[in-house]
Amino acid sequence: MNKNETLHTNTENIRKNGKELENKLVNIKGWVWNKRSSGKIRFLILRDGKGFIQCVIDNPELFSIFDECTQESTCEIEGILKEDKRSPLGFEILTKTIKLIHKTIDYPITPKEHGTDFLLDHRHLWIRSRKQFAILRIRHSVKHYIREYLNQEGFIEFDSPIFTPSACEGTTTLFEVDYFGEKMYLSQSGQLYQEAGALSFKKVYCFGPTFRAEKSKTRRHLIEFWMVEPEVAFATLEDIIDISQKMISYVIQKVLENNTYELILLERNVEDLRKIVPPFYRITYSEAVDIIKQKGISFNFGDDFGAPEETAISENFDKPVIITHYPKNIKPFYMKIDPQNPEFVLNMDIIAPEGYGEIVGGSQREDDYQTLLNRMKEENIPIEDYQWYLDLRKYGSVPHSGFGLGIERFVAWICKLEHVRETIPFPRMLYRYKP
Amino acid sequence: MNKNETLHTNTENIRKNGKELENKLVNIKGWVWNKRSSGKIRFLILRDGKGFIQCVIDNPELFSIFDECTQESTCEIEGILKEDKRSPLGFEILTKTIKLIHKTIDYPITPKEHGTDFLLDHRHLWIRSRKQFAILRIRHSVKHYIREYLNQEGFIEFDSPIFTPSACEGTTTLFEVDYFGEKMYLSQSGQLYQEAGALSFKKVYCFGPTFRAEKSKTRRHLIEFWMVEPEVAFATLEDIIDISQKMISYVIQKVLENNTYELILLERNVEDLRKIVPPFYRITYSEAVDIIKQKGISFNFGDDFGAPEETAISENFDKPVIITHYPKNIKPFYMKIDPQNPEFVLNMDIIAPEGYGEIVGGSQREDDYQTLLNRMKEENIPIEDYQWYLDLRKYGSVPHSGFGLGIERFVAWICKLEHVRETIPFPRMLYRYKP
Repeated sequence: MNKNETLHTNTENIRKNGKELENKLVNIKGWVWNKRSSGKIRFLILRDGKGFIQCVIDNPELFSIFDECTQESTCEIEGILKEDKRSPLGFEILTKTIKLIHKTIDYPITPKEHGTDFLLDHRHLWIRSRKQFAILRIRHSVKHYIREYLNQEGFIEFDSPIFTPSACEGTTTLFEVDYFGEKMYLSQSGQLYQEAGALSFKKVYCFGPTFRAEKSKTRRHLIEFWMVEPEVAFATLEDIIDISQKMISYVIQKVLENNTYELILLERNVEDLRKIVPPFYRITYSEAVDIIKQKGISFNFGDDFGAPEETAISENFDKPVIITHYPKNIKPFYMKIDPQNPEFVLNMDIIAPEGYGEIVGGSQREDDYQTLLNRMKEENIPIEDYQWYLDLRKYGSVPHSGFGLGIERFVAWICKLEHVRETIPFPRMLYRYKP
Repeated sequence: MNKNETLHTNTENIRKNGKELENKLVNIKGWVWNKRSSGKIRFLILRDGKGFIQCVIDNPELFSIFDECTQESTCEIEGILKEDKRSPLGFEILTKTIKLIHKTIDYPITPKEHGTDFLLDHRHLWIRSRKQFAILRIRHSVKHYIREYLNQEGFIEFDSPIFTPSACEGTTTLFEVDYFGEKMYLSQSGQLYQEAGALSFKKVYCFGPTFRAEKSKTRRHLIEFWMVEPEVAFATLEDIIDISQKMISYVIQKVLENNTYELILLERNVEDLRKIVPPFYRITYSEAVDIIKQKGISFNFGDDFGAPEETAISENFDKPVIITHYPKNIKPFYMKIDPQNPEFVLNMDIIAPEGYGEIVGGSQREDDYQTLLNRMKEENIPIEDYQWYLDLRKYGSVPHSGFGLGIERFVAWICKLEHVRETIPFPRMLYRYKP
């Protein structure tokens, strides 16, 4: 390579290999994120889709092109890469040339404060901001490391269908679709199909969008959200508790290792995340009720926990807490009854710390044909529609267990966000479905 | 470890590390796939979700439990692992003990031939068969290696929404959903949202289910199918041709390397796949029309290619062929007009060999605001609904390009299947939506 040759690079590469590029002529394409002047020097912060870098301009001949480069204009900058210990990136560019590719006029999202509705209306542009950039890159990492963990453990991705013909838990929170004259529903969970998968492939997961037509407006709910649902044959409740806590810890430790830059941009206290290593805390439903009552919260034993109870419980713990053995009456028909205590089921929820609520729900599944059939009849589930599901207990039945983890809540916790809506590129909420 | 200790293992581990386990006592849990007798020896083929292994039983004391172990019964087998060069796995088990976990009676899918409708009705069990096992494991690999390739190239996964508020190409092939009183549609493509993503993150892709309400019954179409859609900022048509052919080759070469077992089970001729390395063949639309006409097929210049034309073209090539520069009138409004020849667009389709048809469609996108606006008006696209999309040309516009690859056709080609319906766990077709 010629000594003076320009190196086409990007901020991700600079973050990783900056030392090798130091004092060399580099070329970066991107967009003007921000600008400022200070005496005889101009500063242009370029975002290139991989990060943000400060370009220092001390040559007055460049000042007129600098002035042309409005916020979000597309441009190409060449200059010498210099160390800059104050920046999260560690480097800055001493600018030699600026080329304007496309001039932007009146970019709507200015550096001033904007209301959330305005930002959501401009979500296609809001994702260019530094905070959204960091969140959505962490979302990518979270999805990636979940798969990496599961694949290493011998799982295969086995897609559950989105169009599902029946609605076992009632249709009130389901979206209905006219499927060539037939009523079909958008999947709320791929679990039942994963059970068929587990009996074929031993360890499977689905990882796709799911849909809940819930008329609730909370900071923890989206109408369209992504969920990973692993299911394992020859596995008990204890086995999936083990897998789920290892998976959560693996992902968080990997994000800490590889998303340092994004966590700095978010000003996330990483010490709280470093603690997230197995084993998590373990309590039963009954013990959780005691905690709630000790806090003076009025609660009836046998009821399900809502957000306030989850928050109250999680305050006692600096790591996730796994709550097992809920009353069977508040849990779905497919959970296996606890043989030691038949009013309870072999299930578990994992409550995240810092008030992020339930991030995992799972259970051992009922694997006895007659027990499951009776339970379904008790709950008036249309047997005919679920004969295929019952078949899994008729042909090669086996103890099996699984869980689901909602990605958006997990990302909200890792990024410490107020609301899940920022954890997905284009959130779908009760009154929000554009752009 | 005690010399006689039992090693709990599975067939995937045996495939990879069989030599280390040879002559040792192993324990495998799984299901009876098939059985036979030959003189004083019994053979039980166990499937454990990771593969199939023959268990040889020469101890007459085990014959009664062998008889109990009907097809698809769940059981646990212990024995000594021995080399068996005739089996695709390379090993067999000399059985010491058999434990029956769950006895299956009258498993509906017997080793005899069944009709496709019967098999699709029993899809939850059909996936246990050897061929379906191999196909769906290859599907997993294909998805995995696509992401691996894109991640290595600096892409991030950026989820497009499934619920989309408008229908730019007409509603005839869209599924409509009542979204709390608003009409919404299930996504047919995440592309437009990926363009917003590319201008924020430079290289993005979505990889999720998409939906087409097409009333067609062909062996290449599904109602619900998975698509990967990469989109790149600062990229021309040539750039994405390069990315797409490298991605396809990468995935195929990785499958050849890591799914040998599955390809053997499918009896796939791997020599045809080894050839799939870049560069692929390149022709223009006009050259493709010449090929069709030379074959005596009646075709009007300016029409789009259907399955028969694609097959006719692909017969001339032993690798995929990339067809570029289609007439603009048969392509969507967002494709960039060829400045050299404004009746054509800067697009490309990739046609797979062996008659598998179009597996990739892509283009450079129109990046000039006024040109795109005019084109949308010409095609009566509701501008207001797409103002957000036009914004991408107003604020920081940049040459950008992308493509989509349908997973099911790609898997069908790799596995050399007659019909795409076997490439997805639970296919959704015109008259097929259960279980």
